[in-house]
Amino acid sequence: MNFPSKLIEDAVTEISRLPGIGKKTALRLALHLLKQHEANTEALALAITRMRTEIRYCKICHNISDDEECSICSGHRRDPSIICVVEDIRDVLAIENTNQFQGKYHVLGGVISPIQGIGPDEIKIETLINRVELAPTEAPIREIILALSATMEGDTTAFYLAKRLKEKGVKVSTISRGIPFGGELEFTDEVTLGRSIMTRINYSWE
Amino acid sequence: MNFPSKLIEDAVTEISRLPGIGKKTALRLALHLLKQHEANTEALALAITRMRTEIRYCKICHNISDDEECSICSGHRRDPSIICVVEDIRDVLAIENTNQFQGKYHVLGGVISPIQGIGPDEIKIETLINRVELAPTEAPIREIILALSATMEGDTTAFYLAKRLKEKGVKVSTISRGIPFGGELEFTDEVTLGRSIMTRINYSWE
Repeated sequence: MNFPSKLIEDAVTEISRLPGIGKKTALRLALHLLKQHEANTEALALAITRMRTEIRYCKICHNISDDEECSICSGHRRDPSIICVVEDIRDVLAIENTNQFQGKYHVLGGVISPIQGIGPDEIKIETLINRVELAPTEAPIREIILALSATMEGDTTAFYLAKRLKEKGVKVSTISRGIPFGGELEFTDEVTLGRSIMTRINYSWE
Repeated sequence: MNFPSKLIEDAVTEISRLPGIGKKTALRLALHLLKQHEANTEALALAITRMRTEIRYCKICHNISDDEECSICSGHRRDPSIICVVEDIRDVLAIENTNQFQGKYHVLGGVISPIQGIGPDEIKIETLINRVELAPTEAPIREIILALSATMEGDTTAFYLAKRLKEKGVKVSTISRGIPFGGELEFTDEVTLGRSIMTRINYSWE
């Protein structure tokens, strides 16, 4: 595309670096900004710059935070004896939205992926082990829930973590896998369906 | 969504103001920026701010430009006797990409839309009339091509312009409408198909 203006071209180039945004969408966004009031563009530029430069990561769980400790780690309402291990900040948001988990988190910042050259040392595994080891005896960590993606990399990471954590004498669990709620059997892929039969759950008649 | 950080929340809010970008996509983009080097975010912020604050519009055709006159208006290779009238800057880019037009442009910056309260005075019609009137006698404007959308508003604008320009004794044409190249008859909407029969073109056997 030949742009009549270097300024537009630069903006389009930068915007199209974002994931999932091609040149055409970037141009549409740039022209949208041009039509809007100047203050809107300034607010956008300031918000992303501030986010990028001022953001901090919780020193305990590595979640994003405005302070040294995130609101979940510093909150007293959450059960400190259960830690949910996730890959990404987005997973924390997703789980928080369910309102089903009252413990604390640990954000690995990735999963073990030999293909991408990401080993156990590249992600925040040691700090998790430390959290278990250094927990005060009056408030020990009882359970680690692994909430990782059901992918090869997620499974590898879960296996590695389970092995490391077993040595520390802590209970390790993983979120259940199977057919999603509302999912119809005939549209479920074979692997999920096959596994969900293998890992079937007995009804408990109390 | 509850964000663990006000900075992220602000960034997501600002990004999701862009057209076609919801909160979830905005969060994905924000987290992408967090993973990238700080310089990338700065480059993006600078590019959009510079574009918005420094961009100029060509004083002749109202296309975006880095200078007083855009490269098309100041270029000597283009035929100054034909002006293609378009709604938007994007239309200029689209037509330029076809490499089929060697004349100059006039960007209206909108179309007449009584519903949205946009009348002939809200868009750049007078400057177009002036261009026709004030063209030097040794280089008159011979033809105005109306390349407007095939919508109610586009048609209204085209009709208004044709009427105004007729008084000035200039030839006015409009881009042809019909079945797109590669388009199959059975998938063409009724209006397009009906009109393309009405406005059929005779084969010329030379």
